[in-house]
Amino acid sequence: MSEPRYEVIAIGNAIVDVVSSCSDELIEELGMPKGGMTLIDADQAQELYDAMGPAREISGGSAANTLAGLSALGVQCAFVGQVAADQLGSVFAHDIRAVGIDFDTPAREGEPPTARCLIFVTPDGQRTMNTFLGASQFLPATALDEEAIGAASILYLEGYLWDPEEPRAAMRRAIETAKNAGRKVAFTLSDAFVIARYGDDFRALIDDGLIDILFANEVELGAITGEEDFEAGIAALQDKVPTLVVTRSEKGAVALSGGERAAVAAEPVDEVVDTTGAGDLFAAGFLAGYVKGRSLETSLKMGAIAAAEIISHYGARAEEDLAKLMAAKLG
Amino acid sequence: MSEPRYEVIAIGNAIVDVVSSCSDELIEELGMPKGGMTLIDADQAQELYDAMGPAREISGGSAANTLAGLSALGVQCAFVGQVAADQLGSVFAHDIRAVGIDFDTPAREGEPPTARCLIFVTPDGQRTMNTFLGASQFLPATALDEEAIGAASILYLEGYLWDPEEPRAAMRRAIETAKNAGRKVAFTLSDAFVIARYGDDFRALIDDGLIDILFANEVELGAITGEEDFEAGIAALQDKVPTLVVTRSEKGAVALSGGERAAVAAEPVDEVVDTTGAGDLFAAGFLAGYVKGRSLETSLKMGAIAAAEIISHYGARAEEDLAKLMAAKLG
Repeated sequence: MSEPRYEVIAIGNAIVDVVSSCSDELIEELGMPKGGMTLIDADQAQELYDAMGPAREISGGSAANTLAGLSALGVQCAFVGQVAADQLGSVFAHDIRAVGIDFDTPAREGEPPTARCLIFVTPDGQRTMNTFLGASQFLPATALDEEAIGAASILYLEGYLWDPEEPRAAMRRAIETAKNAGRKVAFTLSDAFVIARYGDDFRALIDDGLIDILFANEVELGAITGEEDFEAGIAALQDKVPTLVVTRSEKGAVALSGGERAAVAAEPVDEVVDTTGAGDLFAAGFLAGYVKGRSLETSLKMGAIAAAEIISHYGARAEEDLAKLMAAKLG
Repeated sequence: MSEPRYEVIAIGNAIVDVVSSCSDELIEELGMPKGGMTLIDADQAQELYDAMGPAREISGGSAANTLAGLSALGVQCAFVGQVAADQLGSVFAHDIRAVGIDFDTPAREGEPPTARCLIFVTPDGQRTMNTFLGASQFLPATALDEEAIGAASILYLEGYLWDPEEPRAAMRRAIETAKNAGRKVAFTLSDAFVIARYGDDFRALIDDGLIDILFANEVELGAITGEEDFEAGIAALQDKVPTLVVTRSEKGAVALSGGERAAVAAEPVDEVVDTTGAGDLFAAGFLAGYVKGRSLETSLKMGAIAAAEIISHYGARAEEDLAKLMAAKLG
């Protein structure tokens, strides 16, 4: 059991996305912060669902989306996350296993149901997310396979899951396990609201040298460093994390690693349909390059290519063959 | 309660589609008849789902798809169909109500779960369907609102639902109610396998003058009439049903009504992504024209436009605003 079974093990929310297109007026009417992510309870979820147009259900979850991309790119992955023993839980489990990812966390009996994220997509392709965490917030530390984590090259964690107590404890333990085994820990800051709540925790993790690869977007970089200026934000973090990756939407992305700095432009997209998962798939493309020993610039480019695929359709799981797409675009 | 609340009331399977793209090899490996519809039991459903790639869930059901299109085109509709009291049942109910359709059939407690259709879509856009009817086959006649049926302009029925006994009895009763009130009955033959099993029933309905508007595709026309030749098939039916509509995929469609005959070409489509629902939406466009008193040719054209929208994306519910699309295309 001690040979490295996985290149990447991720811990994240096990969520089914409920995706519907809507008007800007509806966003305003429902008082949702456009482009943001809001945690909601069961009653709010019902209320918002009632106000939502016809939808499609597509498996989601930030880290799970990243793993799905990694797996499509030939990286051996395992996912740890909590679903309930219900139909949406079966859907989530099916979809993640169907892309070749090991997922062994036992489904949780009883209430609450499997997590869902109500995603309202406006005509500009922007997504406004409302997450009912459901069973996801009860992921116990006992769900961790410490041997596998100790043997995997990278432990990948999503900041979103820092909010509920049990998964936070599980993630702290996983970080310890990975670091004790000399493995790398990758972390995505997920959203400015998470940083608002847990920024001190995250800064402590960074200062303690527990994060090897940090993913942030421009807003999150500002929130975690307190620096409004992009370059000042980079400067504040670059010596604290061995690899820093910052995405900037249509302005592309920047990465710093081992004294090197690389930047890449955003990949052109015919039509931005739904930006859900753009950051998740950027992380997938980048990490695929990273574990395969590609250059910093190529890894960034791979992130940009994967992100461009995701925003050209509804849902945060790839519809095109990402490996073929990479081969075609990277030459 | 006696004013006509609805222009169209439909009785059909209440199904959530589970849609996944797949290779032609997988279709062959699983031994599925490509392009067809197969009824499967719970065990087969689990087996096929295990073999299926990552999927998205989108509400479906033939008559329900047709109603969703009609409602988008401004026609007042109600749907009658049986879901279970489970998550997929809630998804189905939400999606049909979200497009403005009344749906009051109470969810059924206990097993079996809500119906689902596992749809494998090959690169040519062809769909191969495997339906687990679940709760759908237990629709009782008590679910019918006979007053509303007696007051609605059109009762719309799908042949698929003729297979299970309870819904068949409910549909027979609904036909009687509609005809006694002097209303029109529209019927879609659904699939050649249904005709193979229940062709005698359908021919009796037709011979007894109980079907006012009959929808068939070319294959179904051959199956119901026993005529291999298209024109011979038309000739065999044209005097028995007041309005006959036959779709011919990329060859367009033909309609005969009151001694008049009209034909329309298929609408051009950039890329055929998924043909699921093409017939359902053709019926929606045609019936929308019919209830609004448009000409036979315009009604056919409306059918072709709605069908073209559906096959240009995954899923059998419209993604574009059909009313706007009609306005743009019809001028």
